Amino acid sequence: MGAGPGDAGLLTIRGLRALEAADVIVADRLGARGVLDGLAAEGVRLQAEVVDVGKLPGHHAVPQDAINELLVTLARDGRQVVRLKGGDPFIFGRGGEEVAYCRDHGVDVEVVPGITSAISVPAIAGIPLTHRGLATTFTVVTGHDQIQSLGGGRDHTVVLLMGIGTLANSAITLARGERGAGCPVAIIEDGYGPRQRVTVGTLDTIALQAARRGIRSPAVVVVGDVVTLSPYAPLPWVEEAPRRRLETRR
Amino acid sequence: MGAGPGDAGLLTIRGLRALEAADVIVADRLGARGVLDGLAAEGVRLQAEVVDVGKLPGHHAVPQDAINELLVTLARDGRQVVRLKGGDPFIFGRGGEEVAYCRDHGVDVEVVPGITSAISVPAIAGIPLTHRGLATTFTVVTGHDQIQSLGGGRDHTVVLLMGIGTLANSAITLARGERGAGCPVAIIEDGYGPRQRVTVGTLDTIALQAARRGIRSPAVVVVGDVVTLSPYAPLPWVEEAPRRRLETRR
Ligand SMILES: C[S@@+](CC[C@H](N)C(=O)[O-])C[C@H]1O[C@@H](n2cnc3c(N)ncnc32)[C@H](O)[C@@H]1O
Ligand SMILES: C[S@@+](CC[C@H](N)C(=O)[O-])C[C@H]1O[C@@H](n2cnc3c(N)ncnc32)[C@H](O)[C@@H]1O
Repeated sequence: MGAGPGDAGLLTIRGLRALEAADVIVADRLGARGVLDGLAAEGVRLQAEVVDVGKLPGHHAVPQDAINELLVTLARDGRQVVRLKGGDPFIFGRGGEEVAYCRDHGVDVEVVPGITSAISVPAIAGIPLTHRGLATTFTVVTGHDQIQSLGGGRDHTVVLLMGIGTLANSAITLARGERGAGCPVAIIEDGYGPRQRVTVGTLDTIALQAARRGIRSPAVVVVGDVVTLSPYAPLPWVEEAPRRRLETRR
Repeated sequence: MGAGPGDAGLLTIRGLRALEAADVIVADRLGARGVLDGLAAEGVRLQAEVVDVGKLPGHHAVPQDAINELLVTLARDGRQVVRLKGGDPFIFGRGGEEVAYCRDHGVDVEVVPGITSAISVPAIAGIPLTHRGLATTFTVVTGHDQIQSLGGGRDHTVVLLMGIGTLANSAITLARGERGAGCPVAIIEDGYGPRQRVTVGTLDTIALQAARRGIRSPAVVVVGDVVTLSPYAPLPWVEEAPRRRLETRR
């Protein structure tokens, strides 16, 4: 099931009930841990044992094969298992693989969607992915490879997940296309979390800004004219403005 | 706030609290009405007056200007107003416009994300929009116009919202590109609702299938290899199979 972006209030009602009914919760770090901590802070007591299979900084993640096996083993033990994943389980979350593995091994699965970070993290910065007159299409990608075949102009919003490592290359590739170097970009770090921070710039400035500010994962990158709707964006948006006007602020 | 795809269990906890605290709920038909009925069925009593501004079959929708004005008027009356929209309010929902209008008129707004139909409706048919080895990118569009500039192959999933009216043209355009005529397509009507129905075919067959089955809005169309993961898809997927093997079933 999906935990949403890390804010307990953005858990679904069905998701909360599943957590309450669980014997074991197999949780990722991103989003999932934040939600469990948030529930605890609100006094929601869960009976379940929590197994943390998320990547910790400096540690290796539990390999996907081991997670798959763990889920099947626990379920065969007769325990009610919840697999808690950040955001939506079917968006870059390998949820489809885990479902397939469980079903292939005779384990019944119910999928509970979650609020994806791809949409909700831009929203917390005031950015809708579509907006009449500004954007009629949006694409969600992870790395640089898929960006190379992406057409479209500034009215085609692009959302990058796991995109910080390849940000400089992605920005150059997108700037070379129809969007151009002055296309607005926003980066939202740790959306709904304690380190939430918004950085706004353009395709030709964003990599430098990110380096200067020490931008870190998890972060969502949004590219397109919808970024101008953010209260964090300098308004009115003037592409020809001196660069310091485009400096970021919180 | 977002109501999700129409299933009360997919409302967020924050969304439920907002509904409980509301004096007035200004609701769309799609998703929003389903959720209110679902809550009532579960015995959740809301105090709020419900104003229905959704499109009814055969009736005109309340114009957007009138909705904007209504929201501001109600709020200025000192009432706690919830604007309940299907799915996520920032995805093809004109939520951004409503927020801007309210803020421009001195009305404070909090945005509560919802589970978008673009992701959750494919999920109910067993289709993840991304999947290792099958899809690494997804794009959400509404009509035929935006499809013409969409590149990519079958590993770039395309989701059409409000796409039934232009389905035949969209399918032809997509089939002419890299995806090809045999590219898998699924249509999910009325996801999570009483008329939920899944139709699976390929780009060259889907318009005819849709016509034969009398497919109607609301429906989500998914195009790409991820469709083969659906239990509704004939497995193993054989493109060269006689066409009747590709006939649809529920
Ligand atoms: C492996 S993907 C999983 C996405 C998840 N399934 C979803 O639907 O949100 C992880 C990426 O999601 C993004 N992400 C998830 N939660 C986030 C948050 N709270 N703030 C910023 N980015 C987040 C980051 O880009 C991160 O690298
Ligand atoms: C105006 S758009 C609004 C989308 C909404 N904001 C969201 O995030 O889901 C309406 C379209 O969403 C899709 N849709 C919404 N709810 C649906 C459901 N329960 N089943 C199938 N399609 C749905 C249909 O394509 C419909 O034409």
